[in-house]
Amino acid sequence: MSQVSVVMGSTSDWETMKKTTVLLDELGITYEKHIISAHRMPDQLQSFGQSAAKNALQVIIAGAGGAAHLPGMIAANTTIPVIGVPMQSHALNGLDSLLSIVQMPAGVPVATVAIGDAGAKNAAILAAQIIALRDEKILDNLIAFRKQQTQKSIDSEADLL
Amino acid sequence: MSQVSVVMGSTSDWETMKKTTVLLDELGITYEKHIISAHRMPDQLQSFGQSAAKNALQVIIAGAGGAAHLPGMIAANTTIPVIGVPMQSHALNGLDSLLSIVQMPAGVPVATVAIGDAGAKNAAILAAQIIALRDEKILDNLIAFRKQQTQKSIDSEADLL
Amino acid sequence: MSQVSVVMGSTSDWETMKKTTVLLDELGITYEKHIISAHRMPDQLQSFGQSAAKNALQVIIAGAGGAAHLPGMIAANTTIPVIGVPMQSHALNGLDSLLSIVQMPAGVPVATVAIGDAGAKNAAILAAQIIALRDEKILDNLIAFRKQQTQKSIDSEADLL
Amino acid sequence: MSQVSVVMGSTSDWETMKKTTVLLDELGITYEKHIISAHRMPDQLQSFGQSAAKNALQVIIAGAGGAAHLPGMIAANTTIPVIGVPMQSHALNGLDSLLSIVQMPAGVPVATVAIGDAGAKNAAILAAQIIALRDEKILDNLIAFRKQQTQKSIDSEADLL
Amino acid sequence: MSQVSVVMGSTSDWETMKKTTVLLDELGITYEKHIISAHRMPDQLQSFGQSAAKNALQVIIAGAGGAAHLPGMIAANTTIPVIGVPMQSHALNGLDSLLSIVQMPAGVPVATVAIGDAGAKNAAILAAQIIALRDEKILDNLIAFRKQQTQKSIDSEADLL
Amino acid sequence: MSQVSVVMGSTSDWETMKKTTVLLDELGITYEKHIISAHRMPDQLQSFGQSAAKNALQVIIAGAGGAAHLPGMIAANTTIPVIGVPMQSHALNGLDSLLSIVQMPAGVPVATVAIGDAGAKNAAILAAQIIALRDEKILDNLIAFRKQQTQKSIDSEADLL
Amino acid sequence: MSQVSVVMGSTSDWETMKKTTVLLDELGITYEKHIISAHRMPDQLQSFGQSAAKNALQVIIAGAGGAAHLPGMIAANTTIPVIGVPMQSHALNGLDSLLSIVQMPAGVPVATVAIGDAGAKNAAILAAQIIALRDEKILDNLIAFRKQQTQKSIDSEADLL
Amino acid sequence: MSQVSVVMGSTSDWETMKKTTVLLDELGITYEKHIISAHRMPDQLQSFGQSAAKNALQVIIAGAGGAAHLPGMIAANTTIPVIGVPMQSHALNGLDSLLSIVQMPAGVPVATVAIGDAGAKNAAILAAQIIALRDEKILDNLIAFRKQQTQKSIDSEADLL
Repeated sequence: MSQVSVVMGSTSDWETMKKTTVLLDELGITYEKHIISAHRMPDQLQSFGQSAAKNALQVIIAGAGGAAHLPGMIAANTTIPVIGVPMQSHALNGLDSLLSIVQMPAGVPVATVAIGDAGAKNAAILAAQIIALRDEKILDNLIAFRKQQTQKSIDSEADLL
Repeated sequence: MSQVSVVMGSTSDWETMKKTTVLLDELGITYEKHIISAHRMPDQLQSFGQSAAKNALQVIIAGAGGAAHLPGMIAANTTIPVIGVPMQSHALNGLDSLLSIVQMPAGVPVATVAIGDAGAKNAAILAAQIIALRDEKILDNLIAFRKQQTQKSIDSEADLL
Repeated sequence: MSQVSVVMGSTSDWETMKKTTVLLDELGITYEKHIISAHRMPDQLQSFGQSAAKNALQVIIAGAGGAAHLPGMIAANTTIPVIGVPMQSHALNGLDSLLSIVQMPAGVPVATVAIGDAGAKNAAILAAQIIALRDEKILDNLIAFRKQQTQKSIDSEADLL
Repeated sequence: MSQVSVVMGSTSDWETMKKTTVLLDELGITYEKHIISAHRMPDQLQSFGQSAAKNALQVIIAGAGGAAHLPGMIAANTTIPVIGVPMQSHALNGLDSLLSIVQMPAGVPVATVAIGDAGAKNAAILAAQIIALRDEKILDNLIAFRKQQTQKSIDSEADLL
Repeated sequence: MSQVSVVMGSTSDWETMKKTTVLLDELGITYEKHIISAHRMPDQLQSFGQSAAKNALQVIIAGAGGAAHLPGMIAANTTIPVIGVPMQSHALNGLDSLLSIVQMPAGVPVATVAIGDAGAKNAAILAAQIIALRDEKILDNLIAFRKQQTQKSIDSEADLL
Repeated sequence: MSQVSVVMGSTSDWETMKKTTVLLDELGITYEKHIISAHRMPDQLQSFGQSAAKNALQVIIAGAGGAAHLPGMIAANTTIPVIGVPMQSHALNGLDSLLSIVQMPAGVPVATVAIGDAGAKNAAILAAQIIALRDEKILDNLIAFRKQQTQKSIDSEADLL
Repeated sequence: MSQVSVVMGSTSDWETMKKTTVLLDELGITYEKHIISAHRMPDQLQSFGQSAAKNALQVIIAGAGGAAHLPGMIAANTTIPVIGVPMQSHALNGLDSLLSIVQMPAGVPVATVAIGDAGAKNAAILAAQIIALRDEKILDNLIAFRKQQTQKSIDSEADLL
Repeated sequence: MSQVSVVMGSTSDWETMKKTTVLLDELGITYEKHIISAHRMPDQLQSFGQSAAKNALQVIIAGAGGAAHLPGMIAANTTIPVIGVPMQSHALNGLDSLLSIVQMPAGVPVATVAIGDAGAKNAAILAAQIIALRDEKILDNLIAFRKQQTQKSIDSEADLL
């Protein structure tokens, strides 16, 4: 039983979303991963969303690009928090992906993160922050990770040559 | 049995989409109208899309704003042509609505028209153009409408005082 | 006698519009293809638009970039549905192409699809959806195509390694 | 002890953020509310962020406009999930607020929602979704709220006159 | 026989384009004015463009909004210089009008001026600058106008109270 | 004595502006070319603008990028028509160049053409159109050029293989 | 002898730039104010810039809108620091003003602040920060002002009712 | 004791910010350089800002990208003038960086320069202009630098071949 489900619209999103899974691994979070094209697989999207609660998922991370409907339509079918990752590798540098994901009408939110790689990584961290509210071990991992990245930034000053 | 279905995400879209129905009336096209919120009524959206062919609809016109998923998600559930109308009355002047509707990934098109009132009217005319391919009466109405609007434009020059 | 005419502003649009013709072939739709530069060949544009109905075309697909006037000006000369494909390979990533095509004033619609390759493919599918309203064979092809692409998306999950 | 803290940069944001608190009340979530200007009160921002965990907050909702640094800088000081609400009432229709909040670099995420009122409401719902993972009563409230809003959308069809 | 033709797409553009004619009057330039909707009156557009040279026009000023094809399509039909004025009173604040007019492909230029009122006024001045190359009287008027507006700017400093 | 002066802000603009000079050569127009950086050479800019009329120039073509002040500031110093070419090779794909050139306040127009290469070529053609008003030979060259480019477009259809 | 010169392109900018002068007064900074239209008064602009150093000015604040060349062209004529304030009251919400001011090419910087009122106020504060480097009294005023505004923000929390 | 501190969010900004230091060297200005990630090192950011005055810095130059909070948050903690350099190497070509830095609310200004390399260079020059107000040697260096770059621009005309 996974804590997080990482869903994306097509295999072309995998290069970006792989960064989410690498970080989930690093933070000790269990996850499953799926291709669900909102437009090519509407039935699967519907049943995925509606069974999320039964599957005891705590967070769904959905990456999509262009007219990116996947995160919002999953959110429409569940009360599990959905994090949306706008893909950069599309026309308009991902501005279309971003607006299609973040500008949800009142009633059904998507927790949107940055366009592309930064967002993919932050989706994992945000999921960890949500899970850490009820899970001491993940909280410890998260705090350790944050300390480590702070130290790395501090140490990197030596590279300014 | 209606030729066209006019669907919108909420009653706040009606002021714009009313312009579609006025023009459908003028062009002699029968239609039904519905509120289907993609995010609040995902089940109804799904069943609407999947029964469209059975209901012998020839065109679906869907108006939506912001992260506008309605036109694309209906299109994902049917092979009937879907015309998308981006609402202007939202943040970013409807640029978000436009990109969320038009930037569909390969596989499932939405025939997108202009933001706001102009688009709402043009959705009706585009529907008429599609229906007119197999319906002499609508073609006659359409040709008459086009002639009339050309004449109006010509006559309007007299107003430049 | 072709069902569809694929028109573009210059040979530089062909790399994109080729994707339209590949998909039309796959869907069993007959088509002709033309170069008509709106600005260099205004006479040809006019006569093309005005003879479209006589030639029994069912859909016109027009690709253009920058200040893209081709789709709208063809639409001004015919009642045949016109699908506009905004080219990406221009300044501003195709935002100029998109706005020049989609923001048509009330009276003369262009059915606009996504910028670039996705739009070129979707233009073919949208044409098929319109033709399928009166053509069982194309409808069967379209349904088969949609099933196949759904299956491909489902199967692609195995590639997430 | 509050479940949520609602923070904003100035009293001019209150008209929007009030919509967050109305919905938190409706969903049965306890909250505190604060003015913390990131730029005028950097010390208070720092100490607020660093004491959030001690205060057993489960979610922080931060609204800000323009070069909106409040959500990101709170997130930099805590592991509690931070939801960012971009204000619309600023130059550029809130596009500046949105980009300043959502485009966080890898390492410190902000869960961004829509610009303006829709986002303010959705921030409350997203907070409820996070809290509901460990709180049956809030989950029940949330499910009831979602059902009710679905029913309202369904019933609103009668208003299309 | 007029020196300039002021053309616009519809009477809704007149409030802006009136500013062009006021300034042409002030600069002593003769002009005619026309409504020619590129999309509703393509035949008239064609014949207008093609007879411009015969009518001894020296400059054509064309105002249009949205997917603004009027200036570019007139330019496609004549070698007389065409000045394009993007209307502001449309979706997207006239950005669509501007891009549709200025982003002409190589081969057929439109001399584009600012969005809205400033552009309407500058179209008249630019026309005067072109005509003044061969017309001493207009050059004198133009120089006097420029001097006068410089003086007005200088004098306006007294208003800073 | 040249008919046209081609001015640019720096040698980095030359790759684009070379296309202007190639076309001026082809159209039989004499020209001089200059580097005048608006910001590094304000004195030279001023004296260039103020002596333009004395030098019997008929058109000034100015290419510039970023916060592109060159075309507008030359225009402020002369009544000779100034054509502005926005450079593409800058941040924001030339949108900054375009807006800095085209959005001139009422009183001093710049005839703006498309971003980048298309604009550089069109600047030459627009100059030719202005000069052709009083020069039969240039008009003949222009008409021949236009015919030739139309024929090229017509012939290019054979390349769609 | 003034410490700061507040310059603007026209009286229409005064409503915004007045906010600069109110704050300069509050901070105890002496200033002069001028209308200098970059495009209507290029000679005055030139001589203003070139005499700035002789007049012992320490900072120049320049507000301008649209294709806003005033701040950059003053900066081209002096080594005194120039602060640019982009006006909001123009097409495109001041995005054109912002890009025309901030995107200066390497060699001649303009210290750009926010669009509109916020920028007008911040221009005064930034001027004070520069002057305070060598002026104890202004530094004291500045520190007092900053403390006061922090206290106001803290106290404003009481208004959240 | 340095005159200027050059700060950046991460080593990935160094390629751009190096251009600042090269120019500071050329202008004879002493500087220190630091990595301070606003989001990973909020404590260090705070203490850096608060000790800036004690360290007798005259200008702080801060480069950051995306949701770029570094310049604004340093400015919130000091009265030393802060120059912000928006990084280009991020999603949206640096538009997000620019808006996050320049759109500061009233009360705490950041002196913003151009996106990317041009801005990095101009930050050094702007710092020199501020320091030169009280330092004859730097003023001499600055004047020499400006003369030299003017001469280079003049000489570069010979390269137009």
